[in-house]
Amino acid sequence: MRIGFVGLGVMGRPMARNLIAAGHDLSLYRDKGELEGHQCSSAAEAAERSEVIILMLPDTPDVEAALFGVDGVAESLKPGSLVIDMSSVSPSATKTFARRIEEQGCDYLDAPVSGGEVGAVQASLTIMAGGRPEAFERARPLFKILGKNITRIGDVGAGQTAKVANQIVVGLTIEAVAEALLFAEAAGADPAIVRAALMGGFASSRVLEVHGERMINESYEPGFRIRLHRKDLSLAVQAAAELDLALPNTAATQQLMNAAIADGDGDLDHSALHKTLRRNRS
Amino acid sequence: MRIGFVGLGVMGRPMARNLIAAGHDLSLYRDKGELEGHQCSSAAEAAERSEVIILMLPDTPDVEAALFGVDGVAESLKPGSLVIDMSSVSPSATKTFARRIEEQGCDYLDAPVSGGEVGAVQASLTIMAGGRPEAFERARPLFKILGKNITRIGDVGAGQTAKVANQIVVGLTIEAVAEALLFAEAAGADPAIVRAALMGGFASSRVLEVHGERMINESYEPGFRIRLHRKDLSLAVQAAAELDLALPNTAATQQLMNAAIADGDGDLDHSALHKTLRRNRS
Repeated sequence: MRIGFVGLGVMGRPMARNLIAAGHDLSLYRDKGELEGHQCSSAAEAAERSEVIILMLPDTPDVEAALFGVDGVAESLKPGSLVIDMSSVSPSATKTFARRIEEQGCDYLDAPVSGGEVGAVQASLTIMAGGRPEAFERARPLFKILGKNITRIGDVGAGQTAKVANQIVVGLTIEAVAEALLFAEAAGADPAIVRAALMGGFASSRVLEVHGERMINESYEPGFRIRLHRKDLSLAVQAAAELDLALPNTAATQQLMNAAIADGDGDLDHSALHKTLRRNRS
Repeated sequence: MRIGFVGLGVMGRPMARNLIAAGHDLSLYRDKGELEGHQCSSAAEAAERSEVIILMLPDTPDVEAALFGVDGVAESLKPGSLVIDMSSVSPSATKTFARRIEEQGCDYLDAPVSGGEVGAVQASLTIMAGGRPEAFERARPLFKILGKNITRIGDVGAGQTAKVANQIVVGLTIEAVAEALLFAEAAGADPAIVRAALMGGFASSRVLEVHGERMINESYEPGFRIRLHRKDLSLAVQAAAELDLALPNTAATQQLMNAAIADGDGDLDHSALHKTLRRNRS
């Protein structure tokens, strides 16, 4: 299939490589010439050459610019094309983007992922999609090349909503484990023994297992950067205001991420919230 | 072994029953005559007749009264006895209780449990103990009758510290899952599908599995009551002030439990924090 791929960063590059390895014909924007495919000079050129256009970009304004900016996808999109945004961006902006793309006689899916760089390289991403069932079925063979746990959550925007929900659970569970291990340490108990004792019961989680261990070892190389997680919780807090919904611990955890970034720790793994809460304790 | 058992409520009764079934000779205070053992008229009488005294009481003041009040354990404790407090109470008060008991030539263990009534009945409790290694070894055969995952966390108080850490993780993870599922619902996605999509990745936890399902079904029979969980988070918040430790989400979740109790929901399962955050949404 002729696929345009816009956004070849830490996540996009290994995803594009997996599509190429599966035999697809990729038009790339912007690649440094490392991947096998047609090097385009704009997102518009990638769209012109393709039936399916995949975006994997950092944030909502990047997606908006790639779609609707100068030399953007919308300028040269052919009717019947499918646009798949796999970035993690605003659910409400996603609905607007989809409506504008659909007005050009095309289909739109939001399909953000979790699993990080390792999941992108190993093609084990979790993919949470929103859009028409027919569009999802059209994309499914491509999703199967990129990931494992693939779900159509609902209509356009529902994929982004699920991704934000995922980031709420992960961020707040990391914060919970950090508070618990710091409490144990401050009260004079060995946090490594406490973590082990908690693993069997209702406190058990992937976060207690993986991020709890990072906290105990103080090994904070990313993984997933606090700066990016703050973006996701900002999406949640913004949407909560639009929806008149109270998300108290999401808001407090976002604030704590602000403090971490102010401390110069924005590029550490999100488990470093433990460091932020620990402050000046020796 | 001659065991005094003080506190035969929802948890203590099935625990005492398991000790009796294993062949131990129990002195009970206060039982309604349902269990096979010597019915005592005071905690002091239970202590006088026993080598090991187990307490399973609701809160710190109850333990203090049973140990040091009128007709309390301390009045008739024989030198060489072992006192095991399996209640969930203040770590710092525990250290004071232990010192006073040790001054009478006796040993003290704190050994709170998790696993709830089901764990007590099925003898599958997680037991987190604090105290001298020799005292722990002396108690271990009894712990094996009562539970499965048995850990000596450290010195006296460390068991209570681990229990509080456990309740921080469980309470804040429940709150996180509630915020995430409410966000999904408010943004128009099906929370049941979102929960299922999140189960495979970093968001996965026992709480997402068990309490997440309760939230989706709105089935809030306890389980573990909000009223009791608030007591545990109050212990955390009090200790945090003593230790100059910031636990922002523990404090916020305790406040939310105050709101739940004010709503008349204190005797619902702690997963009903979802109901508290949901407010007037239809």
